[in-house]
Amino acid sequence: MIQADKLITDCRLATMVEGGEPYGAIEDGAILIADGRIVWAGARADLPPHEAIEADRLDGRWVTPGLVDCHTHLVFGGDRSGEFEQRLQGVTYEEIARAGGGIVSTMAATRTASEDDLYASAIARLAGLKATGVTTVEIKSGYGLDRDSELKMLRVARRIGREAGVRVRTSYLGLHAVPPEHRAERGAYVDLAIDDILPAAASDGLVDAVDAYCEPIAFSGDEVSRLFERAEALGLPVKLHADQLSDGGGAALAAKYGALSADHVEHTTEAGARAMGEAGVVAVLLPGAFLMLRETTPPPIAMFRKHGVAMAVATDCNPGTSPVASMTAALNLACVQFRLTPEEALAGATRIAAKALGLQDEVGTIEVGKVADLAVWDIQRPAELCYWLGKPLLARRYVGGRAA
Amino acid sequence: MIQADKLITDCRLATMVEGGEPYGAIEDGAILIADGRIVWAGARADLPPHEAIEADRLDGRWVTPGLVDCHTHLVFGGDRSGEFEQRLQGVTYEEIARAGGGIVSTMAATRTASEDDLYASAIARLAGLKATGVTTVEIKSGYGLDRDSELKMLRVARRIGREAGVRVRTSYLGLHAVPPEHRAERGAYVDLAIDDILPAAASDGLVDAVDAYCEPIAFSGDEVSRLFERAEALGLPVKLHADQLSDGGGAALAAKYGALSADHVEHTTEAGARAMGEAGVVAVLLPGAFLMLRETTPPPIAMFRKHGVAMAVATDCNPGTSPVASMTAALNLACVQFRLTPEEALAGATRIAAKALGLQDEVGTIEVGKVADLAVWDIQRPAELCYWLGKPLLARRYVGGRAA
Ligand SMILES: [Zn+2]
Ligand SMILES: [Zn+2]
Repeated sequence: MIQADKLITDCRLATMVEGGEPYGAIEDGAILIADGRIVWAGARADLPPHEAIEADRLDGRWVTPGLVDCHTHLVFGGDRSGEFEQRLQGVTYEEIARAGGGIVSTMAATRTASEDDLYASAIARLAGLKATGVTTVEIKSGYGLDRDSELKMLRVARRIGREAGVRVRTSYLGLHAVPPEHRAERGAYVDLAIDDILPAAASDGLVDAVDAYCEPIAFSGDEVSRLFERAEALGLPVKLHADQLSDGGGAALAAKYGALSADHVEHTTEAGARAMGEAGVVAVLLPGAFLMLRETTPPPIAMFRKHGVAMAVATDCNPGTSPVASMTAALNLACVQFRLTPEEALAGATRIAAKALGLQDEVGTIEVGKVADLAVWDIQRPAELCYWLGKPLLARRYVGGRAA
Repeated sequence: MIQADKLITDCRLATMVEGGEPYGAIEDGAILIADGRIVWAGARADLPPHEAIEADRLDGRWVTPGLVDCHTHLVFGGDRSGEFEQRLQGVTYEEIARAGGGIVSTMAATRTASEDDLYASAIARLAGLKATGVTTVEIKSGYGLDRDSELKMLRVARRIGREAGVRVRTSYLGLHAVPPEHRAERGAYVDLAIDDILPAAASDGLVDAVDAYCEPIAFSGDEVSRLFERAEALGLPVKLHADQLSDGGGAALAAKYGALSADHVEHTTEAGARAMGEAGVVAVLLPGAFLMLRETTPPPIAMFRKHGVAMAVATDCNPGTSPVASMTAALNLACVQFRLTPEEALAGATRIAAKALGLQDEVGTIEVGKVADLAVWDIQRPAELCYWLGKPLLARRYVGGRAA
């Protein structure tokens, strides 16, 4: 006899468990939840003897795992809509940068913002993610670029995880850009980011993973390697912004350090894809940035498939290159622009995204032992989650078994 | 002394009135509403003596005219997410068409659907438009393709206008496709659409404008001309799906008949743009279809600017080529893909969209005499409406002066 807090029935399940039906689908499904976890899931006809305190009937709706947005820069000060407008009025990137725009303007706004302000503005963006089924979100630092401001961003991310009805995983992204005060001596900033800020953030329990931006315009492979070795010494997993604008060997570097993921990866070569496949590094696809930057080289999807590289899909929500706050928009764009199948895209926002965060034992599928993070949808088939742009589809979310 | 039903203050206005500040902006604005219309709008400091029954303070929020989505196929049976998925799995268009897919599948689902079913499914899509500030929506027929089914679609559109908290303008789009039962004798279908269905729909008061799909794969200039002459005889304005996939002379044809708008217009030539400018035909840009079809030739924006062609932006919400149900997504895509400025795009979703529907005296700006259809936004500047993809920005709508 299973003792449960909740029984969910009258629903169709897209469990996203691999190896069976497309989407791991179960037509007339049931889920038993106890202490916030799934204690049984399957066909209603197979329900074992149980007692449940509550029963939720879902009127035939589809249930998926709660979506996992595994790459965001959700916490930042200001926004860059003014620059967006200037660019469309013909002002050049160079002119905007000279006037203190670009990432420097976000850094300045982030440094001056209070924690309450950062929290409030992030929550307004998070509303778009939650309304599109997200129950776990990764949040990076990287707009503070000094110790106090990086720690401030990470504290805000933790507060979101405590108060905002969503699970949060943080990534320390000190190597995002060199702040202006260190332009003349970038090495000193790299030292600060690796030897001072990272250990301080880690010792405050603010870091779940360590990330960097590896690109000729940002940080070199050598600088990233030093960061990753420090992360390893601290027992923290790593991930990498890699090969977004050019092939910088980022994929291979991520593979060498056993990274959870290499993200963007538009310009990854076949050697890089093979290395990722062998090392089990997830490729995190960010189709919002691809759209906003009007990129023309999509990530090498066929090569990733060939070399067994698991692909995640995320919003990359950020003020400069991906002001995207809808997970279903990311799914649509991944299918339309990158030609993922809807099943691949949805796996990329559930099971694979969980893997990209090292949470594959906790979230990402509807399976016994996972937390009961679920999204309930007003759709006739799972592909609708990728087909519509902007149609409200979510009926409700469960986080840890509670309607949220 | 102005007697008003409502006074709106503590707001910034983007009136979208031409000729003054960008966006027709008024920093500390006020609006007086009586009998559902704007009886005064301007700077709060200039408020004339007035008595108002109600007062709404908007906490400094921005107010724009309610958005106008001037090109949709919002009413249809079924959806095509299954085909969307098949295409991404590698099935060809030809295989899908042979299996009864494409527009024929939507026609079949629309014919068999009840009016209640069509209404309910359209309302679920409309929710996305309303949540992004839409207060007026154009809805086309064109999936019935027989008399009863075309009239059924138009009745459902009228019902939406009565019951769903949005103004509706209908367009009769009988010349959308030749239905299968008339494949062998397309002339008979053209006759039916022009001489039978159109007059029947018009005499039932179901038609605000007449539209057609002018393209080599659809209907010829001669067929469209016959339709437009019939429309003229019935006193109905016309508009045209023109030059979407090729230059078919659609823009010039629209200009010749003094059409309200020519829509899509990706392949319009300079001669066509000049003719549109001279005839005052609005170019309706549909960036959602451009995205979903992965088109590479954007509409000739520079030529439209040069020849004084006013540009509107719409969702084209439809199951085959633009499953888009967000007006702010259309704004974002118009800026990102077509390089409209945010001010052009927002004018295209307000003042110019109103013109594309012949409603320029009723909606589209915040001005004395217009109906009090307003959208209130949680933004710091109007450009944010075009910058974000998927962030919830709407605080509330007013339709005819009532919070909706
Ligand atoms: Zn990023
Ligand atoms: Zn259309």
